[in-house]
Amino acid sequence: MRVRNKPWADTLIADNEKAIVLEPAQYRGHWQDRFASQQPLHVEVGTGKGQFLIGMAKAHPELNFVGIELQKSVLAAALKTSLPEELTNLQWVLADGQGIENFFEPREVAKLYLNFSDPWPKTRHEKRRLTSKTFLASYSAVLGNGGNIQFKTDNRHLFEYSIMSMAAFGLDLRELSLDLHTDVAASEGQLENIETEYEQKFAAKGQPIYRLVARIPEK
Amino acid sequence: MRVRNKPWADTLIADNEKAIVLEPAQYRGHWQDRFASQQPLHVEVGTGKGQFLIGMAKAHPELNFVGIELQKSVLAAALKTSLPEELTNLQWVLADGQGIENFFEPREVAKLYLNFSDPWPKTRHEKRRLTSKTFLASYSAVLGNGGNIQFKTDNRHLFEYSIMSMAAFGLDLRELSLDLHTDVAASEGQLENIETEYEQKFAAKGQPIYRLVARIPEK
Ligand SMILES: C[S@@+](CC[C@H](N)C(=O)[O-])C[C@H]1O[C@@H](n2cnc3c(N)ncnc32)[C@H](O)[C@@H]1O
Ligand SMILES: C[S@@+](CC[C@H](N)C(=O)[O-])C[C@H]1O[C@@H](n2cnc3c(N)ncnc32)[C@H](O)[C@@H]1O
Repeated sequence: MRVRNKPWADTLIADNEKAIVLEPAQYRGHWQDRFASQQPLHVEVGTGKGQFLIGMAKAHPELNFVGIELQKSVLAAALKTSLPEELTNLQWVLADGQGIENFFEPREVAKLYLNFSDPWPKTRHEKRRLTSKTFLASYSAVLGNGGNIQFKTDNRHLFEYSIMSMAAFGLDLRELSLDLHTDVAASEGQLENIETEYEQKFAAKGQPIYRLVARIPEK
Repeated sequence: MRVRNKPWADTLIADNEKAIVLEPAQYRGHWQDRFASQQPLHVEVGTGKGQFLIGMAKAHPELNFVGIELQKSVLAAALKTSLPEELTNLQWVLADGQGIENFFEPREVAKLYLNFSDPWPKTRHEKRRLTSKTFLASYSAVLGNGGNIQFKTDNRHLFEYSIMSMAAFGLDLRELSLDLHTDVAASEGQLENIETEYEQKFAAKGQPIYRLVARIPEK
């Protein structure tokens, strides 16, 4: 999702410090202060232009949401879309998800979302994949035992890798779908699925969407 | 794979006791006596009409093979096909795979194959699935640490279930393909795949074939 740096992005971000955080480590242990209500915190890493998390925040007023994104101009687009919605349970963070242990205290996050993460197909780039061992260790730290990671992708090789990586890390694989949209259609409304921007694009091409939910086991 | 009981089956089986075993518990710990050479033993549960295992036995003279099948008339068809090949590294067993711990000693089996196992889609039939917990415990017993289970299927829900079941059992997921035939084609001969009867049937319909290899971990 390469987007040219836009000068309006800096202005928009500077003008909306109530909705976007540039130094997330400052809020470690105090994220609830940024929301209207104290309620479970769900975090997305690699939120892109925010379609998924805005949809989730609207559908779930009983939860708080943080979307972390690396690229300024991409996150500025998310901010631009979310502002008119005046969602008091949604915050954006401009940062590299790699630092997530510095952003949140152990157990501060209840659930973590990864959606259509960059595939990094080359073996020598394995460590950059958001489902590689080091990332999983950081997620475990902020989630604590019983916390969940939900991962969606269209990328077959990344999904195959991620299943093996999560199982090897000792996570409980709780839910697994190799064709999410067929399962959602068959569930007659029982299976909630807020679609991401990439998900809509790939599903329109007829590609299956893969999804899993993994849990940090109770020790 | 329902096949009408055929009278020729009984005759064929009675006439070929060198190739087929009716009381496998008798050979527990002594399977190597049934083969021309002492070499690693690979076992398939639910071998059907034997296409896969006959192909494997031909391709791998350096291994011994046992195919276990529940239905007499189906296994008789396997026997009929294998006899003219005079394979000294292949044996058939007419039995329920559920008893596998009584058929083989711990560590007597090096690798186990499950191909297109009956899906048993209803939750109340979970225990009948060949990848359910009780079966995995029996496989672990006969394989020992470091032994491998290879599973192929076209059935999406059975594959999803099997991944979760194997991960929950603590098996190492070593290889995983959500589109085996595409991976085989791309591997330029590196990835061996002997096709089963059901595999050819489903692949011809354009369905993806799923495969995984799981290992009993070293303690
Ligand atoms: C392929 S896009 C998917 C966007 C969105 N999740 C969707 O499904 O439509 C991946 C996004 O993750 C972001 N990203 C990649 N690595 C990241 C990291 N380490 N921390 C934060 N964001 C990251 C990228 O900048 C990009 O916007
Ligand atoms: C769907 S067929 C697949 C046959 C073959 N593996 C293939 O891929 O073409 C499944 C076979 O497994 C056999 N089977 C099912 N449960 C079994 C068990 N508990 N023990 C031995 N065989 C079993 C059935 O009788 C049937 O022949």
